[in-house]
Amino acid sequence: MRLVTVRIDGATRAGRVSGDEIVLLDAPDVRTVLEAGPVTSGSVAVAEGGGTLALDDADLAPVVPGPDKIVCVGLNYRDHAAETNSPLPAAPIYFAKYRRALTGPYDPIRLPVPEVSTNADWEVELAVVIGRQVRHAGADEALAAIAGFTVLNDVSIRDWQTRTTQFLAGKTFEGSTPVGPALVTADEIGDGRGLRVSCTVDGVTKQSSNTDQLVFGPVELVADLSTIMTLDPGDIIATGTPGGVGMARDPQQWLAPGMVVRTAVEGIGEMVNPCVAG
Amino acid sequence: MRLVTVRIDGATRAGRVSGDEIVLLDAPDVRTVLEAGPVTSGSVAVAEGGGTLALDDADLAPVVPGPDKIVCVGLNYRDHAAETNSPLPAAPIYFAKYRRALTGPYDPIRLPVPEVSTNADWEVELAVVIGRQVRHAGADEALAAIAGFTVLNDVSIRDWQTRTTQFLAGKTFEGSTPVGPALVTADEIGDGRGLRVSCTVDGVTKQSSNTDQLVFGPVELVADLSTIMTLDPGDIIATGTPGGVGMARDPQQWLAPGMVVRTAVEGIGEMVNPCVAG
Repeated sequence: MRLVTVRIDGATRAGRVSGDEIVLLDAPDVRTVLEAGPVTSGSVAVAEGGGTLALDDADLAPVVPGPDKIVCVGLNYRDHAAETNSPLPAAPIYFAKYRRALTGPYDPIRLPVPEVSTNADWEVELAVVIGRQVRHAGADEALAAIAGFTVLNDVSIRDWQTRTTQFLAGKTFEGSTPVGPALVTADEIGDGRGLRVSCTVDGVTKQSSNTDQLVFGPVELVADLSTIMTLDPGDIIATGTPGGVGMARDPQQWLAPGMVVRTAVEGIGEMVNPCVAG
Repeated sequence: MRLVTVRIDGATRAGRVSGDEIVLLDAPDVRTVLEAGPVTSGSVAVAEGGGTLALDDADLAPVVPGPDKIVCVGLNYRDHAAETNSPLPAAPIYFAKYRRALTGPYDPIRLPVPEVSTNADWEVELAVVIGRQVRHAGADEALAAIAGFTVLNDVSIRDWQTRTTQFLAGKTFEGSTPVGPALVTADEIGDGRGLRVSCTVDGVTKQSSNTDQLVFGPVELVADLSTIMTLDPGDIIATGTPGGVGMARDPQQWLAPGMVVRTAVEGIGEMVNPCVAG
Protein backbone atom coordinates (compact mmCIF):
# COMPACT_ATOMS: atom_id res chain seq x y z
CA MET A 1 0.00 0.00 0.00
CA ARG A 2 1.07 3.58 -0.65
CA LEU A 3 -0.02 6.11 1.97
CA VAL A 4 0.15 9.90 1.70
CA THR A 5 -0.77 12.94 3.75
CA VAL A 6 -2.56 15.56 1.67
CA ARG A 7 -3.40 19.18 2.42
CA ILE A 8 -7.10 20.04 2.05
CA ASP A 9 -8.81 23.24 3.18
CA GLY A 10 -6.11 24.33 5.58
CA ALA A 11 -5.85 20.94 7.29
CA THR A 12 -4.39 17.56 6.37
CA ARG A 13 -5.91 14.17 5.62
CA ALA A 14 -4.41 10.75 5.18
CA GLY A 15 -5.03 8.88 1.97
CA ARG A 16 -4.11 5.69 0.19
CA VAL A 17 -2.99 5.78 -3.41
CA SER A 18 -5.13 3.76 -5.81
CA GLY A 19 -3.91 4.07 -9.38
CA ASP A 20 -3.98 7.76 -10.26
CA GLU A 21 -6.31 8.61 -7.37
CA ILE A 22 -6.02 9.19 -3.64
CA VAL A 23 -8.72 7.53 -1.58
CA LEU A 24 -9.14 9.69 1.51
CA LEU A 25 -9.03 7.99 4.90
CA ASP A 26 -10.71 8.94 8.15
CA ALA A 27 -7.50 10.17 9.76
CA PRO A 28 -5.68 13.52 9.70
CA ASP A 29 -2.32 12.09 8.65
CA VAL A 30 -0.28 8.94 8.12
CA ARG A 31 0.96 8.89 11.73
CA THR A 32 -2.63 8.55 12.92
CA VAL A 33 -3.22 5.73 10.44
CA LEU A 34 -0.19 3.86 11.78
CA GLU A 35 -1.23 4.44 15.38
CA ALA A 36 -4.58 2.81 14.59
CA GLY A 37 -3.00 -0.50 13.61
CA PRO A 38 -0.92 -2.42 11.10
CA VAL A 39 -0.91 -1.37 7.45
CA THR A 40 -0.27 -3.88 4.69
CA SER A 41 -0.90 -3.90 0.97
CA GLY A 42 -4.31 -5.40 1.70
CA SER A 43 -5.59 -3.42 4.66
CA VAL A 44 -5.45 -0.30 6.74
CA ALA A 45 -6.91 0.11 10.25
CA VAL A 46 -8.93 3.27 9.63
CA ALA A 47 -12.08 3.68 7.56
CA GLU A 48 -12.25 5.30 4.15
CA GLY A 49 -14.18 8.53 4.03
CA GLY A 50 -14.30 11.82 2.18
CA GLY A 51 -14.11 10.55 -1.35
CA THR A 52 -11.17 10.65 -3.72
CA LEU A 53 -9.00 13.18 -5.45
CA ALA A 54 -6.67 13.01 -8.41
CA LEU A 55 -3.09 12.25 -7.41
CA ASP A 56 -1.79 14.82 -9.90
CA ASP A 57 -3.87 17.58 -8.30
CA ALA A 58 -3.03 16.72 -4.70
CA ASP A 59 -1.09 19.11 -2.48
CA LEU A 60 1.06 16.62 -0.59
CA ALA A 61 2.30 17.36 2.92
CA PRO A 62 5.32 15.65 4.47
CA VAL A 63 4.22 12.02 4.55
CA VAL A 64 4.33 12.19 8.37
CA PRO A 65 3.98 15.91 9.14
CA GLY A 66 4.43 15.64 12.90
CA PRO A 67 6.46 12.58 13.90
CA ASP A 68 7.34 12.10 17.55
CA LYS A 69 10.96 11.59 16.49
CA ILE A 70 13.10 12.21 13.45
CA VAL A 71 16.38 10.34 13.80
CA CYS A 72 19.06 10.82 11.17
CA VAL A 73 22.14 8.71 10.57
CA GLY A 74 25.46 10.14 9.45
CA LEU A 75 28.17 8.63 7.24
CA ASN A 76 26.20 5.42 6.74
CA TYR A 77 27.12 4.74 3.08
CA ARG A 78 30.43 3.19 2.22
CA ASP A 79 30.87 5.57 -0.73
CA HIS A 80 29.95 8.72 1.29
CA ALA A 81 32.38 7.79 4.06
CA ALA A 82 35.07 7.41 1.40
CA GLU A 83 34.42 10.80 -0.24
CA THR A 84 34.55 12.62 3.10
CA ASN A 85 37.75 10.79 4.10
CA SER A 86 35.94 9.30 7.08
CA PRO A 87 36.53 5.78 8.39
CA LEU A 88 33.48 3.51 8.34
CA PRO A 89 31.64 4.10 11.61
CA ALA A 90 31.85 1.39 14.26
CA ALA A 91 28.39 2.37 15.50
CA PRO A 92 25.54 4.33 13.90
CA ILE A 93 26.06 8.10 14.11
CA TYR A 94 22.71 9.52 15.24
CA PHE A 95 21.54 13.09 15.22
CA ALA A 96 18.10 14.69 15.24
CA LYS A 97 15.88 17.01 13.29
CA TYR A 98 12.80 18.77 14.61
CA ARG A 99 9.35 18.62 13.04
CA ARG A 100 9.64 22.19 11.74
CA ALA A 101 12.44 21.13 9.39
CA LEU A 102 10.04 19.02 7.31
CA THR A 103 8.41 20.15 4.10
CA GLY A 104 6.30 18.43 1.46
CA PRO A 105 7.59 16.32 -1.44
CA TYR A 106 6.84 19.02 -4.05
CA ASP A 107 7.22 22.06 -1.80
CA PRO A 108 10.05 24.57 -2.02
CA ILE A 109 13.19 23.87 -0.02
CA ARG A 110 13.63 26.96 2.13
CA LEU A 111 17.28 28.00 2.03
CA PRO A 112 18.64 30.40 4.65
CA VAL A 113 18.94 34.00 3.50
CA PRO A 114 22.47 34.67 2.20
CA GLU A 115 23.51 36.60 5.32
CA VAL A 116 22.86 33.43 7.36
CA SER A 117 24.37 30.87 4.99
CA THR A 118 25.07 30.09 1.35
CA ASN A 119 26.24 26.51 2.06
CA ALA A 120 23.10 24.42 1.51
CA ASP A 121 23.74 20.88 0.30
CA TRP A 122 21.61 17.94 -0.92
CA GLU A 123 21.40 14.49 0.69
CA VAL A 124 18.99 11.92 -0.73
CA GLU A 125 18.10 9.24 1.81
CA LEU A 126 15.95 6.19 2.26
CA ALA A 127 13.81 6.79 5.34
CA VAL A 128 12.26 4.15 7.57
CA VAL A 129 8.79 4.85 8.98
CA ILE A 130 7.95 2.99 12.20
CA GLY A 131 4.60 1.21 12.34
CA ARG A 132 4.33 -0.03 15.91
CA GLN A 133 5.89 0.65 19.29
CA VAL A 134 9.13 -1.23 19.74
CA ARG A 135 11.71 -1.39 22.56
CA HIS A 136 14.72 -3.66 23.14
CA ALA A 137 14.10 -5.32 19.78
CA GLY A 138 15.99 -8.14 18.17
CA ALA A 139 16.18 -8.37 14.40
CA ASP A 140 12.79 -10.02 13.88
CA GLU A 141 10.96 -7.58 16.10
CA ALA A 142 12.77 -4.66 14.50
CA LEU A 143 11.74 -5.78 11.03
CA ALA A 144 8.14 -6.21 12.18
CA ALA A 145 8.13 -2.67 13.59
CA ILE A 146 8.91 -1.11 10.20
CA ALA A 147 5.69 0.08 8.51
CA GLY A 148 7.54 0.93 5.34
CA PHE A 149 9.81 3.41 3.62
CA THR A 150 9.80 6.86 2.11
CA VAL A 151 12.29 9.36 0.63
CA LEU A 152 13.90 12.15 2.66
CA ASN A 153 16.22 14.89 1.41
CA ASP A 154 18.39 15.72 4.42
CA VAL A 155 19.29 19.21 3.16
CA SER A 156 22.24 20.36 5.22
CA ILE A 157 23.49 23.86 5.91
CA ARG A 158 27.15 22.89 6.03
CA ASP A 159 28.66 25.90 7.75
CA TRP A 160 26.11 25.59 10.57
CA GLN A 161 26.56 21.79 10.65
CA THR A 162 30.30 22.18 11.14
CA ARG A 163 30.16 25.32 13.32
CA THR A 164 30.60 23.00 16.32
CA THR A 165 31.15 19.25 16.76
CA GLN A 166 27.40 18.63 16.77
CA PHE A 167 25.51 18.47 13.46
CA LEU A 168 22.05 19.49 14.74
CA ALA A 169 22.18 23.23 13.97
CA GLY A 170 22.86 22.66 10.27
CA LYS A 171 20.34 19.85 9.93
CA THR A 172 17.14 21.40 11.22
CA PHE A 173 16.62 24.68 9.39
CA GLU A 174 12.92 25.32 9.06
CA GLY A 175 11.29 23.98 5.90
CA SER A 176 14.53 22.55 4.55
CA THR A 177 13.79 18.81 4.55
CA PRO A 178 11.38 17.32 1.99
CA VAL A 179 9.90 13.96 2.94
CA GLY A 180 7.61 11.81 0.80
CA PRO A 181 5.96 11.49 -1.61
CA ALA A 182 4.45 8.31 -0.12
CA LEU A 183 4.99 5.68 2.52
CA VAL A 184 5.32 2.35 0.72
CA THR A 185 4.56 -0.54 3.03
CA ALA A 186 7.23 -3.11 3.83
CA ASP A 187 5.19 -5.99 2.45
CA GLU A 188 5.48 -4.35 -0.96
CA ILE A 189 9.02 -3.01 -0.91
CA GLY A 190 10.85 -5.40 1.45
CA ASP A 191 13.44 -4.57 4.10
CA GLY A 192 14.90 -1.50 2.38
CA ARG A 193 17.97 -3.24 0.95
CA GLY A 194 18.85 -3.26 -2.74
CA LEU A 195 17.09 -0.03 -3.72
CA ARG A 196 18.60 2.54 -6.10
CA VAL A 197 18.80 6.06 -4.65
CA SER A 198 19.47 9.19 -6.68
CA CYS A 199 19.60 12.96 -6.55
CA THR A 200 19.71 15.41 -9.42
CA VAL A 201 20.10 19.18 -9.32
CA ASP A 202 18.79 21.04 -12.39
CA GLY A 203 18.80 17.73 -14.25
CA VAL A 204 22.42 16.85 -13.49
CA THR A 205 22.92 13.65 -11.51
CA LYS A 206 24.73 14.35 -8.25
CA GLN A 207 24.11 11.17 -6.27
CA SER A 208 23.49 7.68 -7.60
CA SER A 209 23.91 4.70 -5.35
CA ASN A 210 22.10 1.73 -3.86
CA THR A 211 20.98 0.97 -0.31
CA ASP A 212 23.20 -2.11 -0.51
CA GLN A 213 25.96 0.40 0.28
CA LEU A 214 24.45 1.07 3.74
CA VAL A 215 26.82 0.27 6.60
CA PHE A 216 23.93 -0.18 9.05
CA GLY A 217 20.69 -1.30 7.43
CA PRO A 218 17.14 -0.43 8.50
CA VAL A 219 16.70 -3.47 10.74
CA GLU A 220 20.00 -2.88 12.56
CA LEU A 221 19.14 0.79 13.06
CA VAL A 222 15.70 0.05 14.50
CA ALA A 223 17.10 -2.60 16.84
CA ASP A 224 19.94 -0.35 18.03
CA LEU A 225 17.71 2.70 18.55
CA SER A 226 15.20 0.59 20.48
CA THR A 227 17.95 -0.06 23.03
CA ILE A 228 17.92 3.66 23.78
CA MET A 229 14.19 4.36 23.72
CA THR A 230 10.80 3.18 22.54
CA LEU A 231 10.18 3.91 18.89
CA ASP A 232 6.63 4.99 18.08
CA PRO A 233 4.32 4.77 15.06
CA GLY A 234 5.20 7.53 12.60
CA ASP A 235 8.79 7.94 13.78
CA ILE A 236 11.14 8.61 10.88
CA ILE A 237 14.67 7.23 10.63
CA ALA A 238 16.66 8.79 7.79
CA THR A 239 19.26 6.16 7.01
CA GLY A 240 22.05 8.36 5.65
CA THR A 241 23.16 9.63 2.28
CA PRO A 242 25.45 8.17 -0.39
CA GLY A 243 28.41 9.85 -2.05
CA GLY A 244 28.09 12.87 -4.31
CA VAL A 245 27.20 15.67 -1.92
CA GLY A 246 28.20 19.21 -2.84
CA MET A 247 30.49 19.70 0.14
CA ALA A 248 32.79 16.89 -1.01
CA ARG A 249 33.16 18.18 -4.58
CA ASP A 250 36.09 20.14 -5.92
CA PRO A 251 35.17 22.94 -6.16
CA GLN A 252 32.36 22.64 -3.64
CA GLN A 253 28.83 23.12 -4.94
CA TRP A 254 25.87 24.61 -3.11
CA LEU A 255 22.14 24.92 -3.65
CA ALA A 256 20.86 28.37 -4.62
CA PRO A 257 17.41 29.87 -5.12
CA GLY A 258 15.84 28.73 -8.38
CA MET A 259 17.58 25.37 -8.54
CA VAL A 260 15.37 22.28 -8.67
CA VAL A 261 16.33 19.18 -6.70
CA ARG A 262 14.93 15.74 -7.52
CA THR A 263 15.44 12.92 -5.05
CA ALA A 264 14.26 9.39 -5.68
CA VAL A 265 14.36 5.91 -4.19
CA GLU A 266 13.51 2.90 -6.32
CA GLY A 267 10.04 1.57 -5.66
CA ILE A 268 8.94 4.64 -3.70
CA GLY A 269 9.00 7.57 -6.09
CA GLU A 270 10.52 10.96 -6.67
CA MET A 271 10.34 14.29 -4.86
CA VAL A 272 10.75 17.51 -6.87
CA ASN A 273 11.68 20.60 -4.88
CA PRO A 274 12.59 24.07 -6.10
CA CYS A 275 14.91 26.05 -3.85
CA VAL A 276 13.78 29.40 -2.51
CA ALA A 277 15.46 31.89 -0.20
CA GLY A 278 14.33 32.52 3.36
CA MET B 1 3.80 32.44 38.93
CA ARG B 2 4.84 28.81 39.40
CA LEU B 3 3.23 26.33 37.01
CA VAL B 4 3.31 22.55 37.26
CA THR B 5 1.95 19.55 35.40
CA VAL B 6 0.43 16.99 37.75
CA ARG B 7 -0.66 13.39 37.17
CA ILE B 8 -4.27 12.67 38.13
CA ASP B 9 -6.27 9.54 37.32
CA GLY B 10 -4.01 8.38 34.51
CA ALA B 11 -3.94 11.75 32.77
CA THR B 12 -2.21 15.07 33.42
CA ARG B 13 -3.46 18.50 34.42
CA ALA B 14 -1.78 21.88 34.58
CA GLY B 15 -1.80 23.76 37.84
CA ARG B 16 -0.49 26.90 39.44
CA VAL B 17 1.21 26.76 42.80
CA SER B 18 -0.43 28.85 45.52
CA GLY B 19 1.34 28.49 48.84
CA ASP B 20 1.29 24.81 49.72
CA GLU B 21 -1.51 24.04 47.26
CA ILE B 22 -1.86 23.45 43.54
CA VAL B 23 -4.81 25.23 41.95
CA LEU B 24 -5.80 23.08 38.96
CA LEU B 25 -6.20 24.80 35.60
CA ASP B 26 -8.43 23.92 32.69
CA ALA B 27 -5.56 22.56 30.57
CA PRO B 28 -3.87 19.16 30.34
CA ASP B 29 -0.34 20.46 30.82
CA VAL B 30 1.87 23.53 30.99
CA ARG B 31 2.49 23.55 27.23
CA THR B 32 -1.23 24.02 26.64
CA VAL B 33 -1.31 26.85 29.16
CA LEU B 34 1.54 28.62 27.35
CA GLU B 35 -0.10 28.09 23.96
CA ALA B 36 -3.21 29.83 25.29
CA GLY B 37 -1.38 33.09 25.98
CA PRO B 38 1.15 34.94 28.13
CA VAL B 39 1.73 33.87 31.73
CA THR B 40 2.90 36.34 34.35
CA SER B 41 2.89 36.37 38.12
CA GLY B 42 -0.53 37.97 37.97
CA SER B 43 -2.35 36.07 35.24
CA VAL B 44 -2.68 32.96 33.17
CA ALA B 45 -4.71 32.61 29.95
CA VAL B 46 -6.71 29.53 30.91
CA ALA B 47 -9.49 29.22 33.48
CA GLU B 48 -9.14 27.61 36.87
CA GLY B 49 -11.16 24.45 37.34
CA GLY B 50 -11.07 21.15 39.17
CA GLY B 51 -10.27 22.42 42.62
CA THR B 52 -6.98 22.19 44.47
CA LEU B 53 -4.65 19.57 45.82
CA ALA B 54 -1.86 19.65 48.36
CA LEU B 55 1.53 20.29 46.79
CA ASP B 56 3.13 17.66 49.02
CA ASP B 57 0.72 14.98 47.79
CA ALA B 58 0.98 15.82 44.10
CA ASP B 59 2.45 13.37 41.60
CA LEU B 60 4.34 15.79 39.39
CA ALA B 61 4.98 15.02 35.72
CA PRO B 62 7.74 16.61 33.68
CA VAL B 63 6.77 20.29 33.77
CA VAL B 64 6.25 20.13 29.99
CA PRO B 65 5.65 16.43 29.29
CA GLY B 66 5.49 16.70 25.52
CA PRO B 67 7.41 19.68 24.17
CA ASP B 68 7.73 20.14 20.43
CA LYS B 69 11.49 20.52 20.89
CA ILE B 70 14.06 19.82 23.53
CA VAL B 71 17.30 21.57 22.64
CA CYS B 72 20.37 20.97 24.78
CA VAL B 73 23.57 22.98 24.87
CA GLY B 74 26.97 21.42 25.45
CA LEU B 75 30.07 22.83 27.17
CA ASN B 76 28.33 26.11 27.99
CA TYR B 77 29.85 26.74 31.44
CA ARG B 78 33.32 28.16 31.73
CA ASP B 79 34.14 25.75 34.58
CA HIS B 80 32.78 22.65 32.75
CA ALA B 81 34.76 23.49 29.62
CA ALA B 82 37.86 23.76 31.78
CA GLU B 83 37.37 20.40 33.52
CA THR B 84 36.88 18.58 30.22
CA ASN B 85 39.93 20.31 28.69
CA SER B 86 37.73 21.88 26.04
CA PRO B 87 38.21 25.37 24.64
CA LEU B 88 35.31 27.75 25.19
CA PRO B 89 32.95 27.23 22.27
CA ALA B 90 32.82 29.94 19.61
CA ALA B 91 29.15 29.10 18.98
CA PRO B 92 26.53 27.24 21.02
CA ILE B 93 26.88 23.45 20.74
CA TYR B 94 23.34 22.16 20.18
CA PHE B 95 22.06 18.63 20.41
CA ALA B 96 18.61 17.16 20.96
CA LYS B 97 16.66 14.91 23.27
CA TYR B 98 13.35 13.28 22.46
CA ARG B 99 10.21 13.53 24.57
CA ARG B 100 10.58 9.96 25.82
CA ALA B 101 13.77 10.92 27.66
CA LEU B 102 11.82 13.08 30.11
CA THR B 103 10.68 12.01 33.56
CA GLY B 104 9.12 13.82 36.51
CA PRO B 105 10.94 15.86 39.16
CA TYR B 106 10.53 13.17 41.86
CA ASP B 107 10.41 10.12 39.56
CA PRO B 108 13.14 7.52 39.33
CA ILE B 109 15.93 8.12 36.83
CA ARG B 110 15.92 5.02 34.65
CA LEU B 111 19.49 3.86 34.16
CA PRO B 112 20.31 1.40 31.35
CA VAL B 113 20.67 -2.21 32.44
CA PRO B 114 24.35 -3.02 33.16
CA GLU B 115 24.79 -4.98 29.91
CA VAL B 116 23.93 -1.77 27.99
CA SER B 117 25.89 0.74 30.07
CA THR B 118 27.21 1.48 33.55
CA ASN B 119 28.37 5.01 32.65
CA ALA B 120 25.45 7.21 33.71
CA ASP B 121 26.39 10.72 34.78
CA TRP B 122 24.61 13.72 36.32
CA GLU B 123 24.25 17.19 34.76
CA VAL B 124 22.22 19.84 36.55
CA GLU B 125 21.01 22.56 34.18
CA LEU B 126 18.93 25.69 34.08
CA ALA B 127 16.30 25.17 31.38
CA VAL B 128 14.49 27.88 29.44
CA VAL B 129 10.82 27.31 28.62
CA ILE B 130 9.53 29.20 25.59
CA GLY B 131 6.26 31.12 25.99
CA ARG B 132 5.47 32.38 22.52
CA GLN B 133 6.42 31.65 18.93
CA VAL B 134 9.60 33.42 17.93
CA ARG B 135 11.68 33.48 14.74
CA HIS B 136 14.64 35.64 13.66
CA ALA B 137 14.65 37.31 17.07
CA GLY B 138 16.88 40.07 18.33
CA ALA B 139 17.68 40.27 22.03
CA ASP B 140 14.49 42.06 23.09
CA GLU B 141 12.24 39.69 21.20
CA ALA B 142 14.17 36.69 22.48
CA LEU B 143 13.77 37.84 26.08
CA ALA B 144 10.05 38.40 25.55
CA ALA B 145 9.68 34.86 24.17
CA ILE B 146 10.94 33.26 27.40
CA ALA B 147 8.01 32.18 29.59
CA GLY B 148 10.31 31.26 32.40
CA PHE B 149 12.74 28.70 33.73
CA THR B 150 12.87 25.24 35.25
CA VAL B 151 15.48 22.65 36.29
CA LEU B 152 16.63 19.82 34.04
CA ASN B 153 19.02 17.00 34.90
CA ASP B 154 20.64 16.09 31.58
CA VAL B 155 21.60 12.57 32.68
CA SER B 156 24.14 11.31 30.18
CA ILE B 157 25.13 7.77 29.29
CA ARG B 158 28.74 8.62 28.58
CA ASP B 159 29.85 5.54 26.63
CA TRP B 160 26.89 5.98 24.27
CA GLN B 161 27.46 9.74 24.11
CA THR B 162 31.05 9.23 23.01
CA ARG B 163 30.44 6.11 20.88
CA THR B 164 30.47 8.42 17.85
CA THR B 165 31.07 12.14 17.32
CA GLN B 166 27.39 12.90 17.93
CA PHE B 167 26.07 13.11 21.50
CA LEU B 168 22.41 12.21 20.82
CA ALA B 169 22.54 8.47 21.56
CA GLY B 170 23.84 9.00 25.09
CA LYS B 171 21.50 11.90 25.83
CA THR B 172 18.09 10.47 25.09
CA PHE B 173 17.76 7.20 27.00
CA GLU B 174 14.14 6.70 27.94
CA GLY B 175 13.10 8.08 31.33
CA SER B 176 16.57 9.40 32.10
CA THR B 177 15.97 13.17 32.22
CA PRO B 178 14.07 14.73 35.14
CA VAL B 179 12.58 18.15 34.44
CA GLY B 180 10.75 20.36 36.93
CA PRO B 181 9.52 20.75 39.57
CA ALA B 182 7.91 23.97 38.33
CA LEU B 183 8.09 26.59 35.63
CA VAL B 184 8.84 29.91 37.34
CA THR B 185 7.83 32.84 35.17
CA ALA B 186 10.40 35.30 33.95
CA ASP B 187 8.72 38.26 35.63
CA GLU B 188 9.52 36.59 38.96
CA ILE B 189 12.95 35.13 38.32
CA GLY B 190 14.45 37.46 35.70
CA ASP B 191 16.54 36.56 32.67
CA GLY B 192 18.15 33.42 34.13
CA ARG B 193 21.47 35.04 35.02
CA GLY B 194 22.95 35.02 38.52
CA LEU B 195 21.26 31.84 39.78
CA ARG B 196 23.05 29.22 41.88
CA VAL B 197 22.87 25.69 40.43
CA SER B 198 23.76 22.54 42.33
CA CYS B 199 23.72 18.77 42.19
CA THR B 200 24.21 16.31 45.03
CA VAL B 201 24.45 12.52 44.88
CA ASP B 202 23.57 10.71 48.12
CA GLY B 203 24.03 14.00 49.94
CA VAL B 204 27.50 14.76 48.57
CA THR B 205 27.79 17.95 46.55
CA LYS B 206 29.01 17.18 43.03
CA GLN B 207 28.19 20.39 41.18
CA SER B 208 27.93 23.90 42.57
CA SER B 209 28.07 26.88 40.26
CA ASN B 210 26.15 29.91 39.09
CA THR B 211 24.50 30.72 35.78
CA ASP B 212 26.82 33.72 35.61
CA GLN B 213 29.33 31.11 34.37
CA LEU B 214 27.26 30.51 31.20
CA VAL B 215 29.14 31.22 28.00
CA PHE B 216 25.90 31.79 26.05
CA GLY B 217 23.02 33.03 28.19
CA PRO B 218 19.32 32.29 27.71
CA VAL B 219 18.63 35.34 25.56
CA GLU B 220 21.56 34.64 23.23
CA LEU B 221 20.49 31.01 22.89
CA VAL B 222 16.90 31.88 22.03
CA ALA B 223 17.99 34.48 19.48
CA ASP B 224 20.50 32.13 17.84
CA LEU B 225 18.11 29.16 17.72
CA SER B 226 15.41 31.36 16.22
CA THR B 227 17.72 31.94 13.24
CA ILE B 228 17.43 28.22 12.53
CA MET B 229 13.74 27.65 13.20
CA THR B 230 10.63 28.94 14.92
CA LEU B 231 10.59 28.22 18.63
CA ASP B 232 7.18 27.28 20.01
CA PRO B 233 5.41 27.56 23.37
CA GLY B 234 6.59 24.78 25.66
CA ASP B 235 9.92 24.25 23.91
CA ILE B 236 12.68 23.47 26.39
CA ILE B 237 16.26 24.73 26.04
CA ALA B 238 18.63 23.09 28.52
CA THR B 239 21.41 25.63 28.85
CA GLY B 240 24.30 23.32 29.73
CA THR B 241 25.91 22.00 32.90
CA PRO B 242 28.65 23.38 35.14
CA GLY B 243 31.78 21.58 36.30
CA GLY B 244 31.73 18.57 38.59
CA VAL B 245 30.35 15.81 36.38
CA GLY B 246 31.36 12.22 37.14
CA MET B 247 33.12 11.66 33.83
CA ALA B 248 35.68 14.39 34.57
CA ARG B 249 36.58 13.08 38.05
CA ASP B 250 39.63 11.00 38.88
CA PRO B 251 38.66 8.25 39.26
CA GLN B 252 35.49 8.64 37.24
CA GLN B 253 32.19 8.29 39.12
CA TRP B 254 28.90 6.91 37.79
CA LEU B 255 25.32 6.73 38.94
CA ALA B 256 24.10 3.33 40.13
CA PRO B 257 20.72 1.95 41.20
CA GLY B 258 19.75 3.13 44.67
CA MET B 259 21.62 6.43 44.53
CA VAL B 260 19.58 9.60 45.01
CA VAL B 261 20.30 12.68 42.89
CA ARG B 262 19.18 16.15 43.93
CA THR B 263 19.38 18.96 41.40
CA ALA B 264 18.44 22.53 42.20
CA VAL B 265 18.43 25.99 40.71
CA GLU B 266 18.06 29.03 42.94
CA GLY B 267 14.56 30.50 42.85
CA ILE B 268 13.06 27.47 41.11
CA GLY B 269 13.41 24.53 43.47
CA GLU B 270 14.88 21.09 43.80
CA MET B 271 14.28 17.78 42.06
CA VAL B 272 14.89 14.53 43.97
CA ASN B 273 15.38 11.42 41.88
CA PRO B 274 16.34 7.92 42.94
CA CYS B 275 18.19 5.88 40.34
CA VAL B 276 16.73 2.56 39.21
CA ALA B 277 17.93 0.01 36.66
CA GLY B 278 16.20 -0.59 33.35
